[in-house]
Amino acid sequence: MEFSEHIKTANVEDVVLRRPSHAPMKGTLCVTGHHLLFSDRDGDSPKQVLVLLRNIDAIEKSVENLLGYSSLFSSSVQSERPTLSSGTITLRCKDLSVLQLDIPGMEECLNIGHSIETLSSLETVSHTYPFFYRPSGLSLQGQWGLSSTELDYAQMEDLNDQWRLSHVNRDYCVCPSYPPAVIVPRAIDDEALIKVAKFRQWGRFPVLCYYHKPNSMVIMRSSQPLTGANRKRCREDELLLQAVIDGSEKGYIIDTRSSQQAQQARMTGGGFESKSSYSCWKRLHRQLERGKVLQESLIKLMEACGDHSDSVDRWLSKLENSKWLSHVHNALATAGLTAECVERDGHSVLVHGSEGTDTTLLVSSLARLILDPSSRTLPGFLALLEREWVQAGHPFQQRCAHSAYSHARIRQEAPVFLLLLDCVWQLAHQFPLAMGFSEALLIRLASDAYASNYGTFLCNSDQERCALGVKERTHCLFQALLTHRERECYSNPLYEPTELAIWPSVQPQSLQLWRGLFLRWTQHTRHLEEAQEEIRNLVLECRGADRASGELDP
Amino acid sequence: MEFSEHIKTANVEDVVLRRPSHAPMKGTLCVTGHHLLFSDRDGDSPKQVLVLLRNIDAIEKSVENLLGYSSLFSSSVQSERPTLSSGTITLRCKDLSVLQLDIPGMEECLNIGHSIETLSSLETVSHTYPFFYRPSGLSLQGQWGLSSTELDYAQMEDLNDQWRLSHVNRDYCVCPSYPPAVIVPRAIDDEALIKVAKFRQWGRFPVLCYYHKPNSMVIMRSSQPLTGANRKRCREDELLLQAVIDGSEKGYIIDTRSSQQAQQARMTGGGFESKSSYSCWKRLHRQLERGKVLQESLIKLMEACGDHSDSVDRWLSKLENSKWLSHVHNALATAGLTAECVERDGHSVLVHGSEGTDTTLLVSSLARLILDPSSRTLPGFLALLEREWVQAGHPFQQRCAHSAYSHARIRQEAPVFLLLLDCVWQLAHQFPLAMGFSEALLIRLASDAYASNYGTFLCNSDQERCALGVKERTHCLFQALLTHRERECYSNPLYEPTELAIWPSVQPQSLQLWRGLFLRWTQHTRHLEEAQEEIRNLVLECRGADRASGELDP
Repeated sequence: MEFSEHIKTANVEDVVLRRPSHAPMKGTLCVTGHHLLFSDRDGDSPKQVLVLLRNIDAIEKSVENLLGYSSLFSSSVQSERPTLSSGTITLRCKDLSVLQLDIPGMEECLNIGHSIETLSSLETVSHTYPFFYRPSGLSLQGQWGLSSTELDYAQMEDLNDQWRLSHVNRDYCVCPSYPPAVIVPRAIDDEALIKVAKFRQWGRFPVLCYYHKPNSMVIMRSSQPLTGANRKRCREDELLLQAVIDGSEKGYIIDTRSSQQAQQARMTGGGFESKSSYSCWKRLHRQLERGKVLQESLIKLMEACGDHSDSVDRWLSKLENSKWLSHVHNALATAGLTAECVERDGHSVLVHGSEGTDTTLLVSSLARLILDPSSRTLPGFLALLEREWVQAGHPFQQRCAHSAYSHARIRQEAPVFLLLLDCVWQLAHQFPLAMGFSEALLIRLASDAYASNYGTFLCNSDQERCALGVKERTHCLFQALLTHRERECYSNPLYEPTELAIWPSVQPQSLQLWRGLFLRWTQHTRHLEEAQEEIRNLVLECRGADRASGELDP
Repeated sequence: MEFSEHIKTANVEDVVLRRPSHAPMKGTLCVTGHHLLFSDRDGDSPKQVLVLLRNIDAIEKSVENLLGYSSLFSSSVQSERPTLSSGTITLRCKDLSVLQLDIPGMEECLNIGHSIETLSSLETVSHTYPFFYRPSGLSLQGQWGLSSTELDYAQMEDLNDQWRLSHVNRDYCVCPSYPPAVIVPRAIDDEALIKVAKFRQWGRFPVLCYYHKPNSMVIMRSSQPLTGANRKRCREDELLLQAVIDGSEKGYIIDTRSSQQAQQARMTGGGFESKSSYSCWKRLHRQLERGKVLQESLIKLMEACGDHSDSVDRWLSKLENSKWLSHVHNALATAGLTAECVERDGHSVLVHGSEGTDTTLLVSSLARLILDPSSRTLPGFLALLEREWVQAGHPFQQRCAHSAYSHARIRQEAPVFLLLLDCVWQLAHQFPLAMGFSEALLIRLASDAYASNYGTFLCNSDQERCALGVKERTHCLFQALLTHRERECYSNPLYEPTELAIWPSVQPQSLQLWRGLFLRWTQHTRHLEEAQEEIRNLVLECRGADRASGELDP
């Protein structure tokens, strides 16, 4: 594909760039196939602003003549006095930033607007920037990613007599959204798994997601069983779950839908595990919103954050009205419940909602973070995201097609992953020493999930990534974040590993707006960053001093 | 006075103490003249909880028999089965903590409740604990307090030709709520001051509160002029203000009432500086709430904080409804405006509302914190509070008689000082490196203003303190806070002095609930404190390392 056919005007001089909390800059705007590049070469220190076109969520154009009113001119007026006119393009980005470009010349403005509109919404995944990004220092050879089911399984020797690695999905036929290898109860053979897959929505049969070593209990995840209106049963499904709790008297099913929603799902072929067929399992319903409701919540939240009124009441009322913090609360509370079932009550848990690709992953991975110290290190957390979100089939491409600013009709968009990151931020905020990673990492992940130089969050499943050669043709974000240079700023300088579970408080009073993400473009956070920097320097200094004094010892 | 006459039961065994976020403790309760002492001598580590009786804001008693229902029994039932009954006393403290005591024996419970009620509300100031507190290491000899008008004046040589020290109030006759010495324009003699005092409510004539060295502009404070319905004038008052802006073309009056309130004040003898009489002064009205409105706001805020519902919406709605953050917003915005007048617009400012003892001090001292680096050190901040709140006649005894939990009718109570501390916390939160003191200091001050071992916040004015011999018979809190042991935990380990003004963001989105104060008894803040401790240790370690490596140098 030739990007150049979409670029009629590649360069404009004397463009003014305006951003909140920044002085306006005047310079040259340049459009390339994947970026907007703004350069201000005046002044003592030349400045550049680079915007990935993929990052642009919505664009507004307005053209203005010198009489000072704003409108889209007819072309006759354009040609009569082209030099007197100028245009303004407002870019609302998926990373929640807002930029405004004042562009001299109406034609230039319209051309650039058109280029941005086209190039920011390329449909073909292999045309996106990750397929072109070739940074020095990173090679396309070698292993892609941090973890694999095989590696995980090999490391958990304890469970090898009860659990096995299955390659039943090696060609993605049994479950298109699962990776080729999964961990399942040893008692269940592949033939049975195929039958179970047919009984679960989209083939997402129950698989192991976390093994809690202290008491050998597990967290499993799946999609809903397809019991339908006729209360269909599947013997193999029942056996699989029975095998999970083998030896223990019961297990819990955390259903992320209300009891009523689960009942209604039967009308469309879905359903739930009935008491009669799964007598050892106790179902707990905790309704978590997803899809459109969640997307609209984010949109309202960002409207509230961008509100310029100076009324505190109005702000708090809009914040409440967005319901975002309620979603954070519900997710954390359900994850806490799941972790309690495992650690305090000493039983295994199966988590699912409908498809098992959204709130299911949210709850199971938060529960793991609460329980599992190894998932709280920087590499451990990234591996968790890789296994439990990317490989587990969270449809990133659909969910992150737009963020809060798009005026397009909401289709498959939903900020489930953003909600996960917010919940993790709440955890890290309540336990400032327990996490090996910093707030900056969470913000970086939030940005990259929507628009990235890396291939990690492309596509909706392992199968799609395989088909496009993502692992051969793009770089892996998680690996890049662990390189020495990046690692420094994504680590928590105060990190002190604890073997204990970290139980979050879910009192409404304990939850806070994640200002670092949602207000980062509108607030002066410079002083807060300085403080972070200061703490980081102190730690480095101390480490240096330790090393120096160590050298003095014989 | 014999405290013992109010103590019928001095000791009870087997009392259970319950506090939020703590396991219940069983032990001995002991009542003394000024304290409740609870001791748990069981277990490996004996624990003690000491409550200053003065700290108790409200007490609730309920007596319960073994049938399990709760009521106040008639005495016949009491005598029939005294051992079967027990009582519960709930103590709501001025420092916002809540304690519950389960006391075996109805009579004991009622006796203790009665002692608490009487001893916690002693009317006579000289019977309160500061007059009995004699810690080792502190002496009653020597200077009381950190600062004085004389010292301040001596340090500001720059202003000596324009300003002078006046002792017109040496016997508190001119203004009962002012200290004996004040700084006034040199051009105005004491005779004129006496006339001005008669023209200002409660004699609070305009005095210097802050001299801004970079441009020689000042902040003054006073009470409202008593123009009344007949638009009375006072030539000396006009001359005094004229003398303030001598050489400059104008000054600003920041009136902390709305324009309408200022108009209405004329009906009751008050008023404002009219344009015709004070032609060089521009009045700006910014309404700040005080008195009952502010007290009710705090009560509602604490109701919201203590709400046990798990609805985020309800919490945010109650938080909004309390209006507390609106008061914080308005105070900071008005202080910002005042600082802007001085630093950016380059003019002097007079701040006043009605009496000049509440919102006036709030605005003028916050403006000073924004502008003046020396007021942001630990000793500088304490000196500011001493001069601009204690000596300037903020009526602490009236304002802090009750905090958020009392059911008594609101009379003179108002959390103006708490609002100041909250605004300072917002500043410190937005500029984590700029303040020399820690959040712990602000929390300590909030507690001590309501109930203290020290005499600093006793009485309503210097005159009252003088009459009672507070400076001879009690210890000074501010001095105690600067002793080596205390100083350590009240300093900001990340402090890096800046000479610049610190302009707070007053966007509603920038303001946060001060969780460290308002939620400290209901939330697990242990992990946050650990993080603070960790940062503190890092700094100490670094300093130690610096010193060690310094010693290696020749």
